[in-house]
Amino acid sequence: MKKIIVQKFGGTSVADTDKIKNVANIVIKERENGNDVVVVVSAMGHTTDHLVKMAKSLTPNPSDREMDMLLSTGEGVSIALLAMAIQAAGYDAVSFNAMQVGILTENIHTKARILDIKTDKLRKNLEAGKIIVVAGFQGVTEDGEITTLGRGGSDTSAVALAAALNAERCDIYTDVEGVYTTDPRVVPKASRLEEVSYDEMLELAHAGANVLHPRSVETAKQFAVPLRVRSSFKLDNMGTLILGVDKMEIFKPVAGVAADLQQARIVVCDVPDKPGIAASLFGKLAQENISVDMIIQSYARKVTNTNDIAFTINISDLPKTLTVLESLRAETQASDIKVDDNIAKVSIVGAGMIDRPGIASLMFETLAKLNINIKMISTSEIKISCLVDKADAQNAVKALHEVFGLECDEIADVKGDLPDV
Amino acid sequence: MKKIIVQKFGGTSVADTDKIKNVANIVIKERENGNDVVVVVSAMGHTTDHLVKMAKSLTPNPSDREMDMLLSTGEGVSIALLAMAIQAAGYDAVSFNAMQVGILTENIHTKARILDIKTDKLRKNLEAGKIIVVAGFQGVTEDGEITTLGRGGSDTSAVALAAALNAERCDIYTDVEGVYTTDPRVVPKASRLEEVSYDEMLELAHAGANVLHPRSVETAKQFAVPLRVRSSFKLDNMGTLILGVDKMEIFKPVAGVAADLQQARIVVCDVPDKPGIAASLFGKLAQENISVDMIIQSYARKVTNTNDIAFTINISDLPKTLTVLESLRAETQASDIKVDDNIAKVSIVGAGMIDRPGIASLMFETLAKLNINIKMISTSEIKISCLVDKADAQNAVKALHEVFGLECDEIADVKGDLPDV
Repeated sequence: MKKIIVQKFGGTSVADTDKIKNVANIVIKERENGNDVVVVVSAMGHTTDHLVKMAKSLTPNPSDREMDMLLSTGEGVSIALLAMAIQAAGYDAVSFNAMQVGILTENIHTKARILDIKTDKLRKNLEAGKIIVVAGFQGVTEDGEITTLGRGGSDTSAVALAAALNAERCDIYTDVEGVYTTDPRVVPKASRLEEVSYDEMLELAHAGANVLHPRSVETAKQFAVPLRVRSSFKLDNMGTLILGVDKMEIFKPVAGVAADLQQARIVVCDVPDKPGIAASLFGKLAQENISVDMIIQSYARKVTNTNDIAFTINISDLPKTLTVLESLRAETQASDIKVDDNIAKVSIVGAGMIDRPGIASLMFETLAKLNINIKMISTSEIKISCLVDKADAQNAVKALHEVFGLECDEIADVKGDLPDV
Repeated sequence: MKKIIVQKFGGTSVADTDKIKNVANIVIKERENGNDVVVVVSAMGHTTDHLVKMAKSLTPNPSDREMDMLLSTGEGVSIALLAMAIQAAGYDAVSFNAMQVGILTENIHTKARILDIKTDKLRKNLEAGKIIVVAGFQGVTEDGEITTLGRGGSDTSAVALAAALNAERCDIYTDVEGVYTTDPRVVPKASRLEEVSYDEMLELAHAGANVLHPRSVETAKQFAVPLRVRSSFKLDNMGTLILGVDKMEIFKPVAGVAADLQQARIVVCDVPDKPGIAASLFGKLAQENISVDMIIQSYARKVTNTNDIAFTINISDLPKTLTVLESLRAETQASDIKVDDNIAKVSIVGAGMIDRPGIASLMFETLAKLNINIKMISTSEIKISCLVDKADAQNAVKALHEVFGLECDEIADVKGDLPDV
C-alpha cells in the first residue's frame, strides 16, 4: 500500500490563481514521489476578511451559525480551484467540503472541535488514483449543521485527517520557512530548527511563536502524527519536523527562546490567608474562559495574616478579568487590585533541560548581568519563563539566544507572520 | 395552518448588502402578512462571473464537477448574508444550502434536473417560527455530489420548493416589473399583463420574452403552482400572476407579441421525395441536442421529384447544424444548403385565440399592409409565428401590438434584462 501524505496550504499560499498553480505543482511533486496525497486548503488570501466585512455591514452581531455558513464558502472556492489546477496539469483530482467527507464536529459554532472523520470516501478516491483536495477550517455536525473550527482550524483539519488516514506525515506549507530558535525579526541570527518535539513546539507556541496553533500541535502529539512546517514559496529546505521526543535525532538543552508581549500582571493585595479564596478566584476566572498563565502567592504576612496573589493573563482578557475580580471583592476582601500591562514573558524552551540543572541559573545570571529585574518566574519540565519589563524583552531574548548557543552563521531573511485562521 | 409563500430573489436583487437589506424588508413584510416564508436566493450580482474567470485562468476546460463545486459557493454567501439581515431586523431566520435541505437531482453536472426535495427540515423550521433562506441553482445527488441546475436554475429551485411544500404561491422577484405585452424597449406603450396563463408564458418565453426561464414555468404548470413575477425595487404594483388557464379572470384573444432575433433559417435544397429522409435529418439534429423551431417541407416538384426542407434553429447552434448536414450529404443528396441568419421570428400569443378564427388573418393582413414579406409560418393552439426579415421585426411588433389592442396609456419605464443564471 502507498504511503499517504497530508499537505496543508494556508490562505497566503492560495491567495491568487498563480499561487494556486504553484500549490498544484507542489502537490504533484509529492504524488510523483510515489505517495498518495490528500491536500487541505484554507480560503484564498483575504476572502475571510471580505466576508466578515459584508456581514458586519448588515449587523454588528451576526449569529454564529450564519457566520459559519458564510465563512465556510471561502474554502469551497479554493478547493474547487486547486482541483482544477491539478487536473489542468494532467492529474486526476477531486475536491470535497467537510460535509461531503464527513468531518464531524461538536454542535458549537465558530470554534467546534473535531469528533470524528469518516474515511470511506477518501480511501475509495485514493484507491481510484485521485488526488484529494479537502476544505480546511470547517466541519459538520450529526444534524448537518455547518461549523468552523476557529483559529488554527485548517492546521487542525489537516492533522486530524492525517491521524484518521494513518498518514505518514502531515506537511504544513506556510509563508515562513519553519520554526526558529527565536523570532527572526528580533534576532536576525535566529536559526531554523531541523527538528523540534511536540512539547517544545507547544511551549514555544504558547510562549508567542506564532507558526502553528497549539491546538494542531496537541492533536499531532495525541495521534503521534509527524508534522513538517515549511514554506510554499522557498522549497530549497525541508523546514522543521515536529515529532515525538523519542523519535528526535538532534538534541540541545535549549531549543528556542520566545517572548510574549501580550501579557498583563494582576496583583490582588492583602487577601486573608484562609483556605478556599484562591480556588474561588481561579475557579471563577476559568468559568469565564480566562486562561491564567503564571501564578504566585506570597507567604502570608505574620502581622496582618494576609497575602498577595499575583497572576498573569492575556491582555485581551483584562476587562473581563477585572469584572470578575470586582464581583469577588466582598469575598477576597482585597485592599487593592494592581494591574501592570507593561510587562513581557521571556521563556526558554527545551526538552533537553530536564536532566541539566544548570539551565535555570544560567538564564537568571544572564538577565542579572543585563540589569534586568525578574518580576515573576514559572517553570515546567521543559520551559522556564521570567516576567520582565516590556522594555527589557528584546535584550533578554537576544542575550539568551546567544548564551544558549542558538545563533546560526547566516542571517535569516524570513518574516514571521500570524498563522491563518 | 399558515399558508406558505416561496419568494425568489435573483442576483441583481442581492447584488450588495444594501440590496440584501431591501430583500430582508420584502421578506419580513410577507411574514407580517401572516404567512410562512421560504426564500430562495441566487448568488450576489457578479459573483458567478468572477468565479468563472478564476476557473478559466487555471484551465480553458475546467471539469463540470469542479465548476459545480465552485459556483455553488456563490449562493452559500448570499443565503447566509440574507439570514443575517433578517435576524438583524429582529426575526428568526436560518439558511440552508441544497445539501442541507436535500434538493436531490440527477447525477449530471452543470444542468441537473431536480428529482425530489426533502421537506422535513423545512417544515420543522417553519413550525419553529423561522424564516427559511435556501440556496437556489444548486442540488445534491444521492451520493453527496454537488450539482447545479443550469440557466434559470434558481427560478426552478423556487418553483420546485413551492410544489414540494404545497405553497400558496411562488413569487419571483426580479429587475423587471412583470411580463409585458411585448418588449418595452421596442414598444414604449407595452403594457404589463396582470395575468397570463402558463402556456402563454411558455410561448412568450420561447418567443423571446426573457423574464422567466421556460423550465421554471413548465415546472409551475406541472404542479399548478401560481407564479408571480414582480420587481424587487418597485413594489407599487403586483407584477404579473402566471397561472392555469382555468383560473384566469382576464381574457384577451392575444396576450402578447414577441420577436426572436436569434434565429437562423436553413434550406436543404432538392432532397429526393422519398420516405425517411426528414426523419433521419431531424433525428440526427435531435441527437446533437439541437432544437429545431419551425419546419416547412414544400410540395414535391413534379419534374425532378425533389422538394426543399426548410427549418429554423437558434443561431448559436448553426455550426453544429451545418456539421450534421454535411455528414448527411450522401443520404439527402441535397443540391445545396442555404443559410439565412438575417431573419426574425415574430409571434402573437394568446390562450383566447383558440375560439377566434380571425386572428391569423388579421396578423397576415397587418404585415401585408406594411409590405413585410412572410417567409415561413408556424402555428400552435395559442401562438402564430411568422418568419420575416430582421429589418422588419420592430415594425411588425409595433403594428401587431397596436392592432391587437395591447397598448396602455402610460409609457413603461422598465428595461428588460436577461434572467440570472
